[in-house]
Amino acid sequence: MSDDIQKHLRNAFEHAKAYRGQGRVADYIPALAKVDPSKFGMSLALPNGKFYCVGDATEPFSIQSVSKVFTLSLALERSGDDLWKSVGREPSGSSFNSIVQLETEGGIPRNPLINAGAIATTDRLMDGQSADDTAAEILAFMQERADDPSVFIDQEVASSEAATGSRNRSLAHFMEAFSNMRHPIETSLSVYFRQCAIAMSTRQLARAGLYLAFGGTDPISGKDIVSTEHCRHINAIMMGCGHYDNSGEFAYRVGLPGKSGVGGGILTIAPGRGAIAVWSPGLNDAGTSLVGSKALEHFVHALNWSIFT
Amino acid sequence: MSDDIQKHLRNAFEHAKAYRGQGRVADYIPALAKVDPSKFGMSLALPNGKFYCVGDATEPFSIQSVSKVFTLSLALERSGDDLWKSVGREPSGSSFNSIVQLETEGGIPRNPLINAGAIATTDRLMDGQSADDTAAEILAFMQERADDPSVFIDQEVASSEAATGSRNRSLAHFMEAFSNMRHPIETSLSVYFRQCAIAMSTRQLARAGLYLAFGGTDPISGKDIVSTEHCRHINAIMMGCGHYDNSGEFAYRVGLPGKSGVGGGILTIAPGRGAIAVWSPGLNDAGTSLVGSKALEHFVHALNWSIFT
Amino acid sequence: MSDDIQKHLRNAFEHAKAYRGQGRVADYIPALAKVDPSKFGMSLALPNGKFYCVGDATEPFSIQSVSKVFTLSLALERSGDDLWKSVGREPSGSSFNSIVQLETEGGIPRNPLINAGAIATTDRLMDGQSADDTAAEILAFMQERADDPSVFIDQEVASSEAATGSRNRSLAHFMEAFSNMRHPIETSLSVYFRQCAIAMSTRQLARAGLYLAFGGTDPISGKDIVSTEHCRHINAIMMGCGHYDNSGEFAYRVGLPGKSGVGGGILTIAPGRGAIAVWSPGLNDAGTSLVGSKALEHFVHALNWSIFT
Amino acid sequence: MSDDIQKHLRNAFEHAKAYRGQGRVADYIPALAKVDPSKFGMSLALPNGKFYCVGDATEPFSIQSVSKVFTLSLALERSGDDLWKSVGREPSGSSFNSIVQLETEGGIPRNPLINAGAIATTDRLMDGQSADDTAAEILAFMQERADDPSVFIDQEVASSEAATGSRNRSLAHFMEAFSNMRHPIETSLSVYFRQCAIAMSTRQLARAGLYLAFGGTDPISGKDIVSTEHCRHINAIMMGCGHYDNSGEFAYRVGLPGKSGVGGGILTIAPGRGAIAVWSPGLNDAGTSLVGSKALEHFVHALNWSIFT
Repeated sequence: MSDDIQKHLRNAFEHAKAYRGQGRVADYIPALAKVDPSKFGMSLALPNGKFYCVGDATEPFSIQSVSKVFTLSLALERSGDDLWKSVGREPSGSSFNSIVQLETEGGIPRNPLINAGAIATTDRLMDGQSADDTAAEILAFMQERADDPSVFIDQEVASSEAATGSRNRSLAHFMEAFSNMRHPIETSLSVYFRQCAIAMSTRQLARAGLYLAFGGTDPISGKDIVSTEHCRHINAIMMGCGHYDNSGEFAYRVGLPGKSGVGGGILTIAPGRGAIAVWSPGLNDAGTSLVGSKALEHFVHALNWSIFT
Repeated sequence: MSDDIQKHLRNAFEHAKAYRGQGRVADYIPALAKVDPSKFGMSLALPNGKFYCVGDATEPFSIQSVSKVFTLSLALERSGDDLWKSVGREPSGSSFNSIVQLETEGGIPRNPLINAGAIATTDRLMDGQSADDTAAEILAFMQERADDPSVFIDQEVASSEAATGSRNRSLAHFMEAFSNMRHPIETSLSVYFRQCAIAMSTRQLARAGLYLAFGGTDPISGKDIVSTEHCRHINAIMMGCGHYDNSGEFAYRVGLPGKSGVGGGILTIAPGRGAIAVWSPGLNDAGTSLVGSKALEHFVHALNWSIFT
Repeated sequence: MSDDIQKHLRNAFEHAKAYRGQGRVADYIPALAKVDPSKFGMSLALPNGKFYCVGDATEPFSIQSVSKVFTLSLALERSGDDLWKSVGREPSGSSFNSIVQLETEGGIPRNPLINAGAIATTDRLMDGQSADDTAAEILAFMQERADDPSVFIDQEVASSEAATGSRNRSLAHFMEAFSNMRHPIETSLSVYFRQCAIAMSTRQLARAGLYLAFGGTDPISGKDIVSTEHCRHINAIMMGCGHYDNSGEFAYRVGLPGKSGVGGGILTIAPGRGAIAVWSPGLNDAGTSLVGSKALEHFVHALNWSIFT
Repeated sequence: MSDDIQKHLRNAFEHAKAYRGQGRVADYIPALAKVDPSKFGMSLALPNGKFYCVGDATEPFSIQSVSKVFTLSLALERSGDDLWKSVGREPSGSSFNSIVQLETEGGIPRNPLINAGAIATTDRLMDGQSADDTAAEILAFMQERADDPSVFIDQEVASSEAATGSRNRSLAHFMEAFSNMRHPIETSLSVYFRQCAIAMSTRQLARAGLYLAFGGTDPISGKDIVSTEHCRHINAIMMGCGHYDNSGEFAYRVGLPGKSGVGGGILTIAPGRGAIAVWSPGLNDAGTSLVGSKALEHFVHALNWSIFT
């Protein structure tokens, strides 16, 4: 069986490699634009502690928006349903940085996985602590989930995000105008930019996501990370909103909850089975890794892990 | 075990009954407005042919938009991927009858489960046959899926739909302006209005949906209704788009693919397990049965059938 | 002085001729697509009955949306302020056939000069009379205003409009869904399509518009056509809305109230001075005659007739 | 004649007074919310240096967005047509602080009289000088135009604007994301907030606007303030965009170019005749002085000064 898995992973990798060069590396953050576009790694983490890896699976990359799943986990445990006063849980049907719905919907972002909603979520984590402490808390959470203290915040990327963060600043000020920010904009954004700049490998990321595949409990350490109910909610939100206006396509092709980042990473959750992470910097039009999506589609089909059959 | 299921079903029913009176019966179709708002029925169909029912489970009601799942099934088998030239598969983030995205997206509806997309899908079924033959084909498909020839088209409801169908006519003419209708508007709409007027009980509807819970094969008759791939695709689209701008909420609360209709019916698919149908005419703001949603949420949790854990 | 006017007109004509070939002839109505794109005529009508003409000034063309100004005149006199229950008087900021605002604004079009608003206005004229009588009334009004019984409805164009009128049908059905149509859609549209198909020369059109330059009274016949207040209102609406999302540009460049049609005609009102009509089939992106706009800009500046200085 | 004017002014004042109490004082800027809502003044300035005044005509109020007309004048003279690379000149059809069109139109505001466009315009004035120098330049321009050095910047209002300027910050950062801001956001906004906080009486404001009624030349001093062409352009833009999504209504009712501010002031230009300023703090839904609009409508009709007849 494990031989089969490794074979399927290798097949998916080879299949998807053919699409390299078709995507476009994110260039609006200079520090990301420098990444080698031919990078491609993929990892599966299983509850028994076993990993399957292929390609550049141990090289750290900028997880960007994949981090939103983890800050959502922290915020849900911290705030519970009170979080939903600041952010909704519906697909937006719009791009990751769209501001249109904020205007027509009173400054409440559609969901925690678009930029506006993620900023509102991170802003929640600031309650009662400084920006540095909040950033440290998020990093510590990622290191623990990855079971690896080498996970780090790439300060160059964080600075680059801050320097080019006009759209995010616009979103935050817009929410502030509707009293939907609890802390000073630049303070909350400084945390948000750092969370997006967390660097991990696909191996670390797959390991980190395991608790979401097992009802909120880390199957290796046995620790309860989020409640079963919150786990279910987070996966439901990833399914509907994890890839912005490409979420339907991901559900259609891959059939698992997932979250993409413009660094080219995607985390995918197979409930009851495991967590899969992939990284390839070239993006499709919606900002999801093009090669990564292809690889996931192939691999999940081979394993027959879609939640829709 | 079966005693447990019946108990859970009864509990969900009793729990949800408390919400009766909070929803609003659809009044824009006069024939629907006459329905007794206190009606409430629920059925679970299992692959072994066993049914669990409670309340008004054998009384026929107007399935309305729930029919879209079945015409999508027929159209996908008929047209295959060519269908996606006429309609997308992304959540719209908008209400069931919104026309805004048609203007900005070249007359291609976001998905087959909003009205515009369903009209385009039904229009596909007309290829090579008359309106009456198409309507007859859809009815026959429903009767076969329900394994019950008593499923019928309520002509009064169909006439009522036709008489009050201005929004749908507007959508169809708009698509026609972008060459996204293949047959005369009123001809295609006459089929669409009849498909929406199909009357079934929750027992029949749950039975009819079973093939979607078992990879496209009817687990009782053993017949292949749609391919496994199409089954997966249909469930993915139901998950993201089955309840319009309330789809995220349904995924969050119930955690299963589902499709609602303004007649108060909801069909829910539990892959590998069974199909659940519920009916209660009072609707929430997004046009989904309020009591029905509550009942499903309660029942699915009790069974632990969410696909997200 | 009259020599000066003729010289200015000739200069404007020569200046604008250089832009021929840059516009695009409307092709969505087949009967319009056949027009010779090099046609170009221009006429000024003065209150003393004198005309200045250049180019193809006596050749009839399809006035299309320029007709909206005249049906608005008729409807305002007929319905008075009650008309404003069916249609607003604000610039839409959108294209001539946009449906988006109808959805967010309860089926009430922004103004009577976009398609939806013009359809609602024509629908008003149907009160108490048949479609044929209404069309005959509009034609008679145009013949009287032009002081020329040779003004006619081009039946081929009218049929072509009807055959390709999907966008307009969509708008009308959408308004009907909000109870903002008083008569059967196809009946009202049959009048609307005929009004758009009225054929006139620039000489006739300039003559027809004179009453709007003189407070509602035809300065030649002395007849009161609309009240002074309605005249002021119609000119204000032309200024803000006469060229859809190009209205600001027309005000900026020409500085007079005007109304364009996709047949390439533009009627321009110089209060207290006269009326100018121009025709050249090539359109800019907003559906206004490109060469016609250039000619008007040049001519109005030479005459120093802008109302903004 | 002058007796007639004074009588008409008095009549308009008395007529409009009846509407006091129907509007709503702007409350989103705390310093504005404190203004006595019963204030009401009105002034007409004539080219011969004569003034007609009624009510609180010599009491300074916060001119707010009326200032946009003057910074547009400065920027047009400074940048010429290059200004139109940063901002358009079309009615937006939207509210003063809407951000929706910025997203769909590449960060270019529709016109210089909505907030986004005014910020882009003021940002232009910063080229080559400090924020303080730019604010000083604007103030000096207003003092010269008003021929009164007592015109001042209300620092409390300016601070209040800065403290509550989230929507404006959001707009500015959004434009910055599209490289449509030339200077640091907070620097440009500090000027913008001060320009909005300029305090003048209706007498001063009417005097200041005279150059726009006389082709860009101050008819009293004889100084050329803007070119005739720019004057025409500014008036055209005021006509189409001076009152946001209420501009059509103002053109319909008053029939003159005008610009309103949420402080309750309106400046109106009667080309070739004079300039009228009015102040009454209660606003209609679109942010235009309710009583002020009524007074202008009455007065302009009495004088027969509409540019549409």
